[in-house]
Amino acid sequence: MGVATVQFYSHALGRRTTYDAILPDTGSGPYPVLLQLHGLFDDHHSWIHKSKLVHYVADMELIVILPDGATSGYLDWHTHSERLNRQNYETMIVDDLWSEVHRNFHVDDQKWGIGGLSMGGYGAIRLGLRHPDKFSSIWGHSSAFVIGDAIPSLGLGEIPGASLFELVPPLKGRTDLPELSFDCGTDDELIESNRDFHLLLDDLGIPHHYAEHTGGHTWEYWDEHVVESLAQHERILGVKREKLAW
Amino acid sequence: MGVATVQFYSHALGRRTTYDAILPDTGSGPYPVLLQLHGLFDDHHSWIHKSKLVHYVADMELIVILPDGATSGYLDWHTHSERLNRQNYETMIVDDLWSEVHRNFHVDDQKWGIGGLSMGGYGAIRLGLRHPDKFSSIWGHSSAFVIGDAIPSLGLGEIPGASLFELVPPLKGRTDLPELSFDCGTDDELIESNRDFHLLLDDLGIPHHYAEHTGGHTWEYWDEHVVESLAQHERILGVKREKLAW
Amino acid sequence: MGVATVQFYSHALGRRTTYDAILPDTGSGPYPVLLQLHGLFDDHHSWIHKSKLVHYVADMELIVILPDGATSGYLDWHTHSERLNRQNYETMIVDDLWSEVHRNFHVDDQKWGIGGLSMGGYGAIRLGLRHPDKFSSIWGHSSAFVIGDAIPSLGLGEIPGASLFELVPPLKGRTDLPELSFDCGTDDELIESNRDFHLLLDDLGIPHHYAEHTGGHTWEYWDEHVVESLAQHERILGVKREKLAW
Amino acid sequence: MGVATVQFYSHALGRRTTYDAILPDTGSGPYPVLLQLHGLFDDHHSWIHKSKLVHYVADMELIVILPDGATSGYLDWHTHSERLNRQNYETMIVDDLWSEVHRNFHVDDQKWGIGGLSMGGYGAIRLGLRHPDKFSSIWGHSSAFVIGDAIPSLGLGEIPGASLFELVPPLKGRTDLPELSFDCGTDDELIESNRDFHLLLDDLGIPHHYAEHTGGHTWEYWDEHVVESLAQHERILGVKREKLAW
Repeated sequence: MGVATVQFYSHALGRRTTYDAILPDTGSGPYPVLLQLHGLFDDHHSWIHKSKLVHYVADMELIVILPDGATSGYLDWHTHSERLNRQNYETMIVDDLWSEVHRNFHVDDQKWGIGGLSMGGYGAIRLGLRHPDKFSSIWGHSSAFVIGDAIPSLGLGEIPGASLFELVPPLKGRTDLPELSFDCGTDDELIESNRDFHLLLDDLGIPHHYAEHTGGHTWEYWDEHVVESLAQHERILGVKREKLAW
Repeated sequence: MGVATVQFYSHALGRRTTYDAILPDTGSGPYPVLLQLHGLFDDHHSWIHKSKLVHYVADMELIVILPDGATSGYLDWHTHSERLNRQNYETMIVDDLWSEVHRNFHVDDQKWGIGGLSMGGYGAIRLGLRHPDKFSSIWGHSSAFVIGDAIPSLGLGEIPGASLFELVPPLKGRTDLPELSFDCGTDDELIESNRDFHLLLDDLGIPHHYAEHTGGHTWEYWDEHVVESLAQHERILGVKREKLAW
Repeated sequence: MGVATVQFYSHALGRRTTYDAILPDTGSGPYPVLLQLHGLFDDHHSWIHKSKLVHYVADMELIVILPDGATSGYLDWHTHSERLNRQNYETMIVDDLWSEVHRNFHVDDQKWGIGGLSMGGYGAIRLGLRHPDKFSSIWGHSSAFVIGDAIPSLGLGEIPGASLFELVPPLKGRTDLPELSFDCGTDDELIESNRDFHLLLDDLGIPHHYAEHTGGHTWEYWDEHVVESLAQHERILGVKREKLAW
Repeated sequence: MGVATVQFYSHALGRRTTYDAILPDTGSGPYPVLLQLHGLFDDHHSWIHKSKLVHYVADMELIVILPDGATSGYLDWHTHSERLNRQNYETMIVDDLWSEVHRNFHVDDQKWGIGGLSMGGYGAIRLGLRHPDKFSSIWGHSSAFVIGDAIPSLGLGEIPGASLFELVPPLKGRTDLPELSFDCGTDDELIESNRDFHLLLDDLGIPHHYAEHTGGHTWEYWDEHVVESLAQHERILGVKREKLAW
């Protein structure tokens, strides 16, 4: 797989922003797309630099897109000026990046997979459930369901729609939702909110897969368990594999 | 010259951010540093991609650093949370990037040059005059002195110290200021505020160089006149040149 | 435009190699392709870093691909081992890179434009004329027609098909050739071989456009005259333009 | 850590070539250097993209340099022309890259560590033992001691000094050699030549560390065992660690 770092103009941010694309060496396309989100303090390179993700997808006919979500929580933040410091990250991803990837890469027409870790697990579940017309497969690792777990001082009440616990009750009975999975390490501070979210989904009867594993909020954990999320995305997206000959 | 794109952790932004470094092929260092700032809608790559800057510095023994200022105006923006969406761009540059460059590159101990265009011209003049302990040579091209010229809706009153017209009167009589120059195209909408700033500096007796040239707010203008700003930085920083042999 | 640096596996080189892609911000694709080749001592970044090429194509609905031709002359070099140090650059470009770009990017089905400077002008004319099934528009700047002009010690007799002067006589009367243009500076050491090639084409009755301009073998010359080659490629490839709104 | 991709001009190759640099987020330098080499079919990105190397060095005050060795075996290949297709990779690394890193990065004056896998393990051991004035710590993983194991058709007799089995006998009794270690997986086709080299060193009384582990010629093996080579380089180079605060 090749790894490309690309800049493009996002109207939602009012500026150029960056993403990485992992591009297949095999097949002839068009390819399905997986959007993979980073955590707080990380960037678009982190999954590539700190896990073996590129190795795991090396013989998959799949394009992986990794945006730079900064410390936005993949949320639209309202600011006081129209053009300076515009911070609409959700819109950047579901509108601008969606168009950019379809514009420039040889991708197929189906919905995308979406995954991530920590803040990016939160983002994957939130964006996936809010945009079931665009995403068919969700997997969050060590997700910061209550971003306040990690970030006590944040007044998320200012961001409408930030809470996953408020997002899901209205989804009860919906039949068009993406396949939804998440996992958390038993030594992770975020385990309680992961369990709470799992119980809430059970109460609501919203289908999902939840797993706990030994481990903490670490790259060793994410490198090990991204293999499981990739298997789900591969199945839902119908990703082909071709063993490289060299 | 080689061009490196680097990410580093900035405490002021609470996250990783990116800069480009143009690195010399000649000499043995340590090298002086020029910080070159981009305009609104551009990024750390824009000077490199849209002008011949790399060609102009090809035989100069100089490291050029190009940060990503987003649409910040190179200002510290105050936000409601401690870690999510932190936006202190001035501090990112004068504290974090300053340390990062000294940490990892073979740079000398003198003050840096600082330049830029439009929003980056504003940033260069503002940061240079606010931090005369760190910058010795300033050159702004087509500077957005009143950011409101370009961005009418911005309430810059919320950003203390944003106004260059309020910044300079207290500097009257100071003898430790950087060499200060700026230019503007006669077809540029920003020409009036450039003239106003020039007149204010004259009134205050603050030494500076101001030039007007035919041209507008375009890359043709910046590509032509960055040669003049490089000549000033070269002189003030004592940059050596070595003609490449191949 | 965004600029992506991508690596991919080339069977012709037996290894991963790198190219840059300039990707449009406008339109929705599929896009035509221009392959732009660098000169000796340069690499895939050189057109991007040392000219305003990215600026010139900023509102063009076009993907520009810039391979790394090393010092190969874009030729297949025969080596003594099957896998170590394999150096088949012509095959890398016309087979492997051709497939890679069609595999991963949103490109249309038409033939490509091809251009370049110096060694890359030679490569553009040679590859374009040898592969008229893949290229429809050729423009060489300051082309090293006789590579020996620049590189006296090279025994190019060892590379079958290296000579452009031997390549063109058999093409007399062919009606499927790409649009062919080239230019050279009157202060360029390569001017005599450019004139010789122009006269040979005239003698053979092979349609072409040849121009001479003031200037030497410099980036100032290439930055100025690449505008003319882009205009030809734009016309032949039917490139659309959309003025960016921001 | 930040990861920079840099191009520089190498006289030994007669062209620009590329390397990656992993740069510390901690400490203030100057830093020790580890040169880490890739295998056949890989490039300067492979250790970064396919293992967790960046994660492992994240709190180490160390600069890791990863050159692009192409399929050269890190050898000087003799070619027929002076400037076209020049292929002196050993000289590129020990002369040109050595100078480039000292020129541009904030590195200390001590010798470097050198490591690698497969062709890069061979290269690390060969370059380290041939240049004990520049390297103090060597570790080869799954090294292709007899490159012919992997590449039967290569006539390495044409490359003077290519054979490690011919290199080491004259080193008997030398007291200035780098710390020398290597390991191999018991399912790796290269295990026999690793054992042969180990026995030869034993016969010669040349101090070294050799280990075998379960596993094959895979990134799972290298990702697991690079931790051990890093520990040796850390010890020999006196690398400091600082736990990042965020």
